[in-house]
Parts: sequence; C-alpha cells; structure tokens
Amino acid sequence: MLKRYLLAPGPTPVPHEALLAMAAPVLHHRTPQFAEIFRKVAAGSRELFGTRQPVLPLASSGTGAMEAAVTNTLSAGDRVLVVSGGKFGERWAEIARTHGLDAIEIEVEWGCAVDPDQIADALRRHPGVRAVLMQHSETSTTALHPVERVAELTRDTDVLLIVDGITSVGVFETRMDEVGIDVLVTGSQKAIMLPPGLALIALSDKAWAAAAKSTLPRYYFDLAKARESFAEDSTAYTPAISFISGLEAVYRLVAEQGGWPAVYRRHAILAEATRRGALAMGLRLLAPSAPSPAATGVWMPEGIDAGEVARYLRDVIGVTVAGGQGKLKGKILRLGHIGYADTFDVIVALTAVEMALKHFGTGVVMGRGPAAAQEVLLQMYQVQEG
Amino acid sequence: MLKRYLLAPGPTPVPHEALLAMAAPVLHHRTPQFAEIFRKVAAGSRELFGTRQPVLPLASSGTGAMEAAVTNTLSAGDRVLVVSGGKFGERWAEIARTHGLDAIEIEVEWGCAVDPDQIADALRRHPGVRAVLMQHSETSTTALHPVERVAELTRDTDVLLIVDGITSVGVFETRMDEVGIDVLVTGSQKAIMLPPGLALIALSDKAWAAAAKSTLPRYYFDLAKARESFAEDSTAYTPAISFISGLEAVYRLVAEQGGWPAVYRRHAILAEATRRGALAMGLRLLAPSAPSPAATGVWMPEGIDAGEVARYLRDVIGVTVAGGQGKLKGKILRLGHIGYADTFDVIVALTAVEMALKHFGTGVVMGRGPAAAQEVLLQMYQVQEG
Repeated sequence: MLKRYLLAPGPTPVPHEALLAMAAPVLHHRTPQFAEIFRKVAAGSRELFGTRQPVLPLASSGTGAMEAAVTNTLSAGDRVLVVSGGKFGERWAEIARTHGLDAIEIEVEWGCAVDPDQIADALRRHPGVRAVLMQHSETSTTALHPVERVAELTRDTDVLLIVDGITSVGVFETRMDEVGIDVLVTGSQKAIMLPPGLALIALSDKAWAAAAKSTLPRYYFDLAKARESFAEDSTAYTPAISFISGLEAVYRLVAEQGGWPAVYRRHAILAEATRRGALAMGLRLLAPSAPSPAATGVWMPEGIDAGEVARYLRDVIGVTVAGGQGKLKGKILRLGHIGYADTFDVIVALTAVEMALKHFGTGVVMGRGPAAAQEVLLQMYQVQEG
Repeated sequence: MLKRYLLAPGPTPVPHEALLAMAAPVLHHRTPQFAEIFRKVAAGSRELFGTRQPVLPLASSGTGAMEAAVTNTLSAGDRVLVVSGGKFGERWAEIARTHGLDAIEIEVEWGCAVDPDQIADALRRHPGVRAVLMQHSETSTTALHPVERVAELTRDTDVLLIVDGITSVGVFETRMDEVGIDVLVTGSQKAIMLPPGLALIALSDKAWAAAAKSTLPRYYFDLAKARESFAEDSTAYTPAISFISGLEAVYRLVAEQGGWPAVYRRHAILAEATRRGALAMGLRLLAPSAPSPAATGVWMPEGIDAGEVARYLRDVIGVTVAGGQGKLKGKILRLGHIGYADTFDVIVALTAVEMALKHFGTGVVMGRGPAAAQEVLLQMYQVQEG
C-alpha cells in the first residue's frame, strides 16, 4: 500500500470540508440559492485580494486569467515589460507575443528576485511602456519578487502593473488597492486549497479604464461582460458551480480557524522550517536571497538527477514533490507548503527527501532535516499557547 | 488550522476508497445486489480469518462480538480461564461473570505475554474448565499473547479457545482452523480500516457443537440464527449495509495492493520502525519482550504525565495517540501503526512525541526518533525494489 502525499507547490491537498462542499448536489446557477453563495464568495475574495473591486471568478486555470489580464487591458502593438526570471515569467512573454504585443523581457537570474532598479531603468529606456507584467511569487524558481517596490514605480503613472498572484494570493497578505496592483490574478489549486479549475481576477480603476480602450479580441474572457454579470451575482457564462461552493467552504474554514492572518503566519513558519531542514541536511537553497513562502527549491547534490529523486519519492515512497522546470529540470526539487499544509507535511517532505538521498548514495545523515524543522515548528505551538 | 492525525491503535484512519463506498446510496439488504456484495465479503472474511467456517458480520462493536462468543458457547456456572494481562483481559472476565460463569483469572503482568505453562498448570489445577478466553494482541498493554502455543493445549481437548482478535486479525496472519482457535472475534475499526460499528465472528466445529448445548439466553447475538441467514447471503437482523459495502471495498483494496501478506509485512516494519524510533529517543517500551505489531506502548519519562502529553499532542499539535488505560493511565502512550498507516504515520508519531517531550522539558534531542525509524523504513522500500 502506498499512501500518497501531495507536497508540491500545486495542486495542493484539498481539505475535506471543501471536498464535501464540492461533492454536494449541483445547484442551478440562476437561482437565489446560488446567488447567496456567490455573494459570500465575492465578499471573501475581496478580503483575500485586499480590494474594493469585484473579484471575478473564471472557469479556467490560472493561465486563462493571465491571458484575460492581457487581452482585456492592452492592444496589439502595445509595449510591455515582462519580468522574466522563471518559467512563469516566460509565460507572460509568450501570452503577450501571442497577442501581438511588443514584450521587452527583463532578464532575472533564475532563483533571484528582480531588482526594482532594473525596471525603473527599463521604463526610462523604453518610452511608451503600457504595462509591467510580473509574478509575485515565481513558482518555478521559488523566488519572491518585490511587487510593492515595483508598484511604487507604476502607481502614479499610466503604466499598468499586472501581477500573477497564483502562488502569492492566500500565501501571504496581498493588499491590491493599497499597494497599487492594477490586475491581480490567482488560481484555485494553491493557497485557496481547491482543485485546479477556477481562477480569480480583479482590475483596478486604472485597469478598467484601460480595458475600455483595449482592442484585443476576447469573448469567453471578456471581463467587462463578467463584471456586468457579477453585479447580478453571477458570471457571463456558466460558472464552475461546484468550485464556487468549494470556495465558500474554504472561506468559512479559514474564518473559523483564525482568518487569513493565521494562515499567513502558518505559511511563513512552514517555509522557515523547510528551509532550515533543507540546510541542515546539507542542501543548498535555490532562492536563498528572496525565498517565497509558497515553496522551497533545493539543489540536488552534484551527480544526483533530481528527476530520478522526484520519481523515486513519488513512485516508491508515495511523496509527490515538484522537480525543476525549463533550465532547472533535473537539478532541483521544489517542496510546497501552502494551503492545507501543516507541521507534518514539512516533516514528511524532509524525511522523505533524506530517505531518497540516502537511497541514491549521498552521505546524508538521517534525522537532521526533521530535527531542524521540529525546532522551528515547536516554536509555532509555543507562540500559539503563549 | 490544525490538521488532524489519527495515530491511535483504533479507531484508525479509513482509506478514501472505503469512505466513498460507505457514502454510496444505501442498498436494500434483501436484494440480489446486496447478496452479491455479501458473498464477496464472506469470501474475503474467510481468507482473513483463515477458516472454512462462515465469518458472521454483526452490527456491533467488537465487545458485542466478545459477548456473543461467551453467550453462544457457554452456560451459567461454566468454569473458564481468562488471561488477564490488561484491560481487555479484564473485559473477558467481566463478560463471563455478567453471565454467571466461574471465571478464573490468570494474572499476567501488564506489558507481558502469558506463559503457556501458566495455562497448562491452571487447566490441571482446575478440572472442568470449558474454555480459555484470551486476547491475541492485548491492545491496552501492546503485548502479544502466544495463541498458537495455548491452542496446543486446547486443540485436542473439549476446552474451547476463545480469542479476541480485535487488534490481531488483519494485523498479522491468523490461521484460525490450522491453529485451532474455536471462536475468533474482530472489529472493523482496527486493521480492517473501517469506522467502528461492525464486528466479525467465526466458530469452529467444536464451538458450534458447544453452541448447540449452550443455554445462556441470547437474541440479537444468536449466532445459530445468524448462520442460517448467512447461508442465504444475509444476516438475521438488519445488517450494517454501508459497512458491508465498505468491507468489500477494503478487501478489494487489499487485493489490489498485494494481498494480506503485503499488509502483514508492512505492519511488522512499521512496528519495528516505531520501536527503534522510541528507543532512539530514550523511551522505554511497555512490552519489550512480546511487542504486538498493532501498537507500541512507551513509558513516559519520570515526572511526565502521559495524559498531559497526550492532550498536548491532540489539542495543540493535532496528533491523536492513545494514553494508558486502567493502571497504566498517565504513565504510557500507545502509538498505533495498523490499517491505513504507512511510513509517514510512524514519522509523524515519533516527531510529534519528540516535540511534545521537548515542550514538557525533558532532555529529548530532536530528530533521533525519526532518524532511527527512517533507517528501518528505507529498507522496506529497498526490499520492494530488489
């Protein structure tokens, strides 16, 4: 018997409260019953995003919402800056070019955060930039980008700040309005603790004004139409009804358990415990200077194929972590610790990696990873009690 | 958020395959559809018990089946020997006395196995003994009793061997017919991986012959009546329908995953890993000379209240283990590792206990418990691969 553990940066485990809500009989979406759930979800999403704008649910994965962000606010030929420091930065550039934008990539070493000065410099050197497209947390490199500092450059200008918050919204606090994010996107399968299939997107007043002028074609992802339906507690096209019910259950669960601030504290501690554990077992961090609290990337020792380690962990030991993507393929593992994750998910990940490293003949000493993590995690409970 | 881990010797976690089967719409029990499931379960239970006899399902907890074992095979005034080395041994004596039997208790130090010579001696000293009542695995002390050796004393005599197999059936191999167990009882909430609420019981030919002569009153637990209904793929009274469906799912799951021999190997390794981990963190075992593979009892260090540790583990850390019962209350913890349990349940239990011991100010060194367990557990995978 292989009991399976999902310890990747996403999809993440779904709590049974959400699974049961999603397994309930499907409501019809043009009913007062659904409208009531929709309103609760709308309020919860506004809190989560830190915005007074409508947070529109889309029946799509996060990439759909990324594309919607571009096609609703920009026009063919528009010049945009793309922070490219990982696979998802590259995705912004691909989406932009697919729609005929002039995408200027700001190259960032994978595992590092963008330096806001690079962006300031690019804005000076490339006149007429209409938007900056970036990740808040670059899932492929486990690096955290300084969105707040980039927003200082765009906030009082005509430049839109378009942020992929897929592994940041719900991981740590996002204050969209206060910071000055113009388009914020997230997906259901990360900190929101649902299966993949739902995306959320919100636009600032500045972004809505841009949307009114944008001429890129869009039909399914027409956000102006989505906003009209949203005002009537619905969506333009058939909503992913069970996901909306699941999201209501998640918001209720989070509220019952101390609210999002408690979630953010937990994520910070789980991330810290994972980093300490990884370092204690002799691994190097992929993003030591700007680690995201969503996931921890670790380099595999010289001569060890990370893909083989990931396969051993998944197929033999039952623990699914993520390997590297793009140029990091075969070199790193990424350990997720968001959403329905706690103390013992970190312990399982670290002990499993130790066992795998031992299996592959490295000189790892068993128990050092969990020991370092235990020290950090125990503090969490002591603070709670104190 | 407190993610909850059920790491007690029972109830044990239920695999989702069984939960989903139990959540399916309830069948009517007087239908060919139910009869088909019933027959599959009957075949699976015979394999599990190692018997050609019908294994009768009862809608009760294990204690109901223990009482059925007594009331169906014995009569008021009958003399019985009871192996009393823990709370469940005491339960046999209580049941026997409730029904007017002359119960002679063979006292065994808690944490130890009965010496078969004690039983041989008692059988000599007390003529007319009709039955020996014992546990195979005494859940309260985590000790394993030598049922096979006791059976050598009773097999070719008129004395019935009545065995509580609640934490042995499905934990390790039971060969009821071959060993010569006359009545064997188990419950659903241990190695069978279902919620509590279903018991199974089987009688040898010798026990059925005794049943024909037994005069204790019984109605709900009338096993002769149950056997008649069993021949028609049903039960005498309304069966616990969802449990029968759940049991079918469990038998299918076990068959898909290498059969019961693979389960027994896993239990043995998880138990060994738990014992090594406990010793490595400086704890003394409760049953060092005869440890059951179902659960591992550990003494708490001097001055530490095991009840407080168990409460801290459960309420603060989210890990439910069992404390001591009866005279062991406050002194020990019992860590379960059967049923839907694997490598990382052992790791979670050991790391959680280390964290709790540190919290309570003992000199425990973090990581030693999991490290020792990891070494044992890794071997399991290497054997699987080899």
